[in-house]
Amino acid sequence: MSAAARARRLDEHAQIVVLEQGEYISFANCGLPYYLSGEIAERDALLLHTPATLAAALNLDVRTGHRVVSIDRDARHVRVQAADGAYDLAYDALLLAPGAVAIRPPIAGLDHPAVHALRTVPDVDGLTAALAPLLAAPGAAPGAATREPRAVVVGAGFIGLEAVEALVARGLHVQLVELADHVLPPLDPELAPLLAAELAAHGVEVHLGVAARAIASDAAGGVTVTLSDGAVLGADVVVVNVGVRPASDLAREAGLDLGPGGAIRVDGDQRTSDPHIWAVGDAAESVLDVTGVRLAVPLAGPANRQGRRAADSMCGHRTTRQRPVLATAIVRVFGLTAATTGASQAALRRAGIEHEVVHLHPGHHAGYYPGAEQLHLVASFAPDGSLLGAQAVGRAGVDKRIDVLATALRAGMTADDLAELELAYSPPYGSAKDPINMLGFVAQNALDGQMPQWQAWNLDTVRATTLVLDVRSRQEYAAGHLDEALNIPHLELRDRLAEVSAAADGREISVHCASGVRSYLATAILRAKGFEARNLSGGWQTLTALPTP
Amino acid sequence: MSAAARARRLDEHAQIVVLEQGEYISFANCGLPYYLSGEIAERDALLLHTPATLAAALNLDVRTGHRVVSIDRDARHVRVQAADGAYDLAYDALLLAPGAVAIRPPIAGLDHPAVHALRTVPDVDGLTAALAPLLAAPGAAPGAATREPRAVVVGAGFIGLEAVEALVARGLHVQLVELADHVLPPLDPELAPLLAAELAAHGVEVHLGVAARAIASDAAGGVTVTLSDGAVLGADVVVVNVGVRPASDLAREAGLDLGPGGAIRVDGDQRTSDPHIWAVGDAAESVLDVTGVRLAVPLAGPANRQGRRAADSMCGHRTTRQRPVLATAIVRVFGLTAATTGASQAALRRAGIEHEVVHLHPGHHAGYYPGAEQLHLVASFAPDGSLLGAQAVGRAGVDKRIDVLATALRAGMTADDLAELELAYSPPYGSAKDPINMLGFVAQNALDGQMPQWQAWNLDTVRATTLVLDVRSRQEYAAGHLDEALNIPHLELRDRLAEVSAAADGREISVHCASGVRSYLATAILRAKGFEARNLSGGWQTLTALPTP
Ligand SMILES: Cc1cc2nc3c(=O)[nH]c(=O)nc-3n(C[C@H](O)[C@H](O)[C@H](O)COP(=O)(O)OP(=O)(O)OC[C@H]3O[C@@H](n4cnc5c(N)ncnc54)[C@H](O)[C@@H]3O)c2cc1C
Ligand SMILES: Cc1cc2nc3c(=O)[nH]c(=O)nc-3n(C[C@H](O)[C@H](O)[C@H](O)COP(=O)(O)OP(=O)(O)OC[C@H]3O[C@@H](n4cnc5c(N)ncnc54)[C@H](O)[C@@H]3O)c2cc1C
Ligand SMILES: CC(C)(COP(=O)(O)OP(=O)(O)OC[C@H]1O[C@@H](n2cnc3c(N)ncnc32)[C@H](O)[C@@H]1OP(=O)(O)O)[C@@H](O)C(=O)NCCC(=O)NCCS
Ligand SMILES: CC(C)(COP(=O)(O)OP(=O)(O)OC[C@H]1O[C@@H](n2cnc3c(N)ncnc32)[C@H](O)[C@@H]1OP(=O)(O)O)[C@@H](O)C(=O)NCCC(=O)NCCS
Repeated sequence: MSAAARARRLDEHAQIVVLEQGEYISFANCGLPYYLSGEIAERDALLLHTPATLAAALNLDVRTGHRVVSIDRDARHVRVQAADGAYDLAYDALLLAPGAVAIRPPIAGLDHPAVHALRTVPDVDGLTAALAPLLAAPGAAPGAATREPRAVVVGAGFIGLEAVEALVARGLHVQLVELADHVLPPLDPELAPLLAAELAAHGVEVHLGVAARAIASDAAGGVTVTLSDGAVLGADVVVVNVGVRPASDLAREAGLDLGPGGAIRVDGDQRTSDPHIWAVGDAAESVLDVTGVRLAVPLAGPANRQGRRAADSMCGHRTTRQRPVLATAIVRVFGLTAATTGASQAALRRAGIEHEVVHLHPGHHAGYYPGAEQLHLVASFAPDGSLLGAQAVGRAGVDKRIDVLATALRAGMTADDLAELELAYSPPYGSAKDPINMLGFVAQNALDGQMPQWQAWNLDTVRATTLVLDVRSRQEYAAGHLDEALNIPHLELRDRLAEVSAAADGREISVHCASGVRSYLATAILRAKGFEARNLSGGWQTLTALPTP
Repeated sequence: MSAAARARRLDEHAQIVVLEQGEYISFANCGLPYYLSGEIAERDALLLHTPATLAAALNLDVRTGHRVVSIDRDARHVRVQAADGAYDLAYDALLLAPGAVAIRPPIAGLDHPAVHALRTVPDVDGLTAALAPLLAAPGAAPGAATREPRAVVVGAGFIGLEAVEALVARGLHVQLVELADHVLPPLDPELAPLLAAELAAHGVEVHLGVAARAIASDAAGGVTVTLSDGAVLGADVVVVNVGVRPASDLAREAGLDLGPGGAIRVDGDQRTSDPHIWAVGDAAESVLDVTGVRLAVPLAGPANRQGRRAADSMCGHRTTRQRPVLATAIVRVFGLTAATTGASQAALRRAGIEHEVVHLHPGHHAGYYPGAEQLHLVASFAPDGSLLGAQAVGRAGVDKRIDVLATALRAGMTADDLAELELAYSPPYGSAKDPINMLGFVAQNALDGQMPQWQAWNLDTVRATTLVLDVRSRQEYAAGHLDEALNIPHLELRDRLAEVSAAADGREISVHCASGVRSYLATAILRAKGFEARNLSGGWQTLTALPTP
């Protein structure tokens, strides 16, 4: 639709036809979970346009209930199936924006009527209808017991988490099933436990590292969901959201080039291998920034902008080159926000890209101003200092930092650049040294060799081969520590170097505190005194976030 | 202090002495207004460090109450005046960070005891003490009438506005006096009226384009403030904040190079004209990005980072070049936030830099998700599309957009780059086409020549020489319009082109709607039909924000 709208603005005289198989056009998919939750009160709010409003404003010929069934590239027409028959429609330029289709995981009973998807307006209508009797006064609904209504959500990706939040908001008890070993698989493993804790705090039971295998009716009018580990969960509704694949069947049948992941291959102007056909959105292939991986990125921002650029190209307007995609994404999970941009650590490892990771837990604004919430930031840098990717979780200020980092990433900025960014500071909004500057500082120190780091995931090796020095206070140490760690509060370190020397006995020293700040000071002292010492990135907070191996 | 702390972390063995004439070190000046307002409840929260904590953590020798009275560059020592006598202190490397001094405007009676500054902890202590009797139960304070306590604030800059907010929060009736023709003079004139309206909504009386001339006791125990237009304002306290100048007297006396504005000239490593002396912060000269203007930029972020970089240079560590300063700044004014980065329109005009300005009024997140607040964005672009500066006012999402734009500016991004930025989108946080993308789109269209703009400040010429076409609805038109404007709601335009033709009678057509969106569609139609037409940047909202000439 963005393409059609842009095309009209560029060319008042073109004949522009939009074919949509479904009943709705220009609807806000991204708003569906918030309509399900009740936050968006009016269903109409999701329907941004109708064929009539698009005809009036943009003189578009929008045909809902019209499905394209084939493309004849030689004749340059598409075959359209409508309720009242089929017809051919000729084109000079054809844009494919068929979106994605839900992946159907191998679960027996996936077509059970209690199983729902959350992709379209009809989906959410169906789910809302299914919830209605469950949410009526307990016991009043036919066949309902007096127990709390229960949902199982399969898949803890972005939309799965939004579904969980919405169902809890509606009063359901929710169990979440995820095959990966942490919720929100695109997130680095040291941040995901924060989300898991937030889910648990809202009564959600999370089942990680298991798959749903079978869904079947139970005797009480509900269903059972059987997991790969044998557990059986009871539910009244099941929402399955395990990801999407590009809707590229039409394109494949028409002989257009597809990428290995099945997405429609396009050039920098969104043009397919046929010069008269363009493709955008969830069905089109993108090149990821940093790793260069090619795949479809099912996000609304890129889809809308690709549509706009495709229209520029189709209309012969000045075009701008397609940029590699960062896949910046964000999700709210109750009171927390999680967001990511660029390459995750897993993606960097898969691509074999060398990187240094830094972890920070700063306040989202000046600490002396009330209400500062802790941010949890993770960023990866290349050895030359280039930013490669970043992620954040927290209760406030997450979206701002990720947007700044997405901009920095697009600009090819380095740790030096982040250190010198000039972000808006006054106490309610930030810090004189913003968390983003701090990321730069810490990365500079790590990459400069001024402050070598050790990483929580190397804990086993570190314990086996080095002295672990815990420079937190005695109270913090008492509340939880590594068994073999030597505790010397950082302010005492200058006077107790002999103890360190004795305990280290020639070994390297692995220092840590709670977040990395005090241990940085301690490590600097040790290094100046000739010790081989490293600072734990992210401190105890990051260490204890990682699942124990 | 950032320099001393960084220097210690780089060099455990250096002897580092910090000389501070006042009683406090490392205090949060930026927090003072929020302590005055009561939001920061504890005075101690402002005192981030004491000499004792700095000695313990960083082994720094911090001497408060020690004033440097002269620098002997040949002997490489400074002369220090302390309570118990004077002494010379030798240095290998000297860092000057004396800050700024308040400008004393030409006001008779400026030393009246009712007149306060808001720069230091003692200032805010004095002000708090002066407010105490005023805020005791009315009539209870000796000599107080039963009327509301009153303040006059002179100067509507960042700190002046924070003072106003704090005094209102404490229950005072506040009058604000500003010599410029709009509040927050660094802000472009089309955004400032939003702040003025917010001030008025909180009972603040704003006096623009006038200076305070005299302050004198009145008979009732208060003071009168006489303005340049003859008006006389009654007050119990007066807060004067008309800006600062670099505290460069010591440097001048020592013969260091100063810039024309009196700031200490430094190189990219913050080194002064003496290779053993560095200078940072409010006293040091910066080069502004975009315009290349040299002046001191009194902001905490740059000051802290300059300190860090100066320490790198002093310690012989790898240094990073000083970047041109964007002077990114932000202020909260009751429920509104105003922020700016890069060059304002006034600065661009002064520097003779050609620029195209775009105005937008988008929601801060998706409109279909409840709670979207309107953002008011202004950005300037060079003819080649480079971003030159941006400003924003709104109730939510302002800091995020300005931080993204500050990052984009630093990266030298263009309108094309903004259009393609990939910012985090989900309904509670943004839009699939974020306001920043929209800025890029609108700027592309204006600079491409696809959608030429007209500007509100050219209204007189536009009225005199073109047909003004108002494409808002009849109701909007009825609620307020330009007398000579022809009203054709945009959806009717395609059918009523003959009317336009007749009314234009060969003249160019100046189209407008409320914000610029509908008029963009209308202008596109007109241009496609062969009319010379332009779209009003920012629409009626921007037009009516500008003070009528
Ligand atoms: C519940 C949900 C929440 C989301 N939240 C976010 C979010 O917060 N942030 C974000 O960035 N993204 C989000 N997304 C993803 C985003 O909505 C998609 O990336 C975006 O809509 C893709 O646009 P598209 O045009 O490629 O496909 P779609 O918007 O899916 O549109 C494709 C259309 O093509 C039609 N179609 C397909 N085949 C044919 C055919 N043969 N003939 C005729 N019509 C056909 C389909 O019926 C469909 O209406 C969310 C998606 C969902 C489902
Ligand atoms: C009320 C207020 C609110 C502010 N709010 C913000 C904000 O929200 N955001 C922002 O970015 N900036 C803000 N600022 C500006 C910010 O505080 C300054 O830019 C920053 O503190 C400058 O640091 P500096 O080290 O250069 O100077 P200062 O912090 O002023 O420190 C200079 C110190 O040097 C001492 N000194 C001077 N001469 C001598 C001498 N001869 N011998 C010994 N000591 C000497 C002074 O006593 C002073 O303590 C605010 C400032 C104030 C006053
Ligand atoms: C509703 C929809 C048809 C609107 O498409 P659109 O008209 O291109 O987009 P917008 O209404 O956001 O308007 C953007 C246009 O207005 C212009 N514009 C915005 N503010 C402007 C202003 N103040 N002055 C002038 N022009 C302005 C922009 O430049 C842009 O035009 P351009 O692309 O020709 O440069 C399309 O976004 C859509 O179908 N959305 C629903 C589906 C969807 O996005 N789902 C996923 C998210 S839930
Ligand atoms: C309080 C004050 C002395 C602190 O200075 P500081 O120690 O340099 O600054 P911070 O406490 O913010 O710590 C920053 C350091 O911690 C490091 N750090 C932060 N988080 C870290 C982490 N998780 N792991 C490792 N290191 C970390 C940074 O790299 C930086 O060190 P570096 O400069 O050597 O690279 C100084 O900021 C000050 O005097 N402030 C008050 C005055 C002021 O700023 N006023 C204006 C604003 S109101």
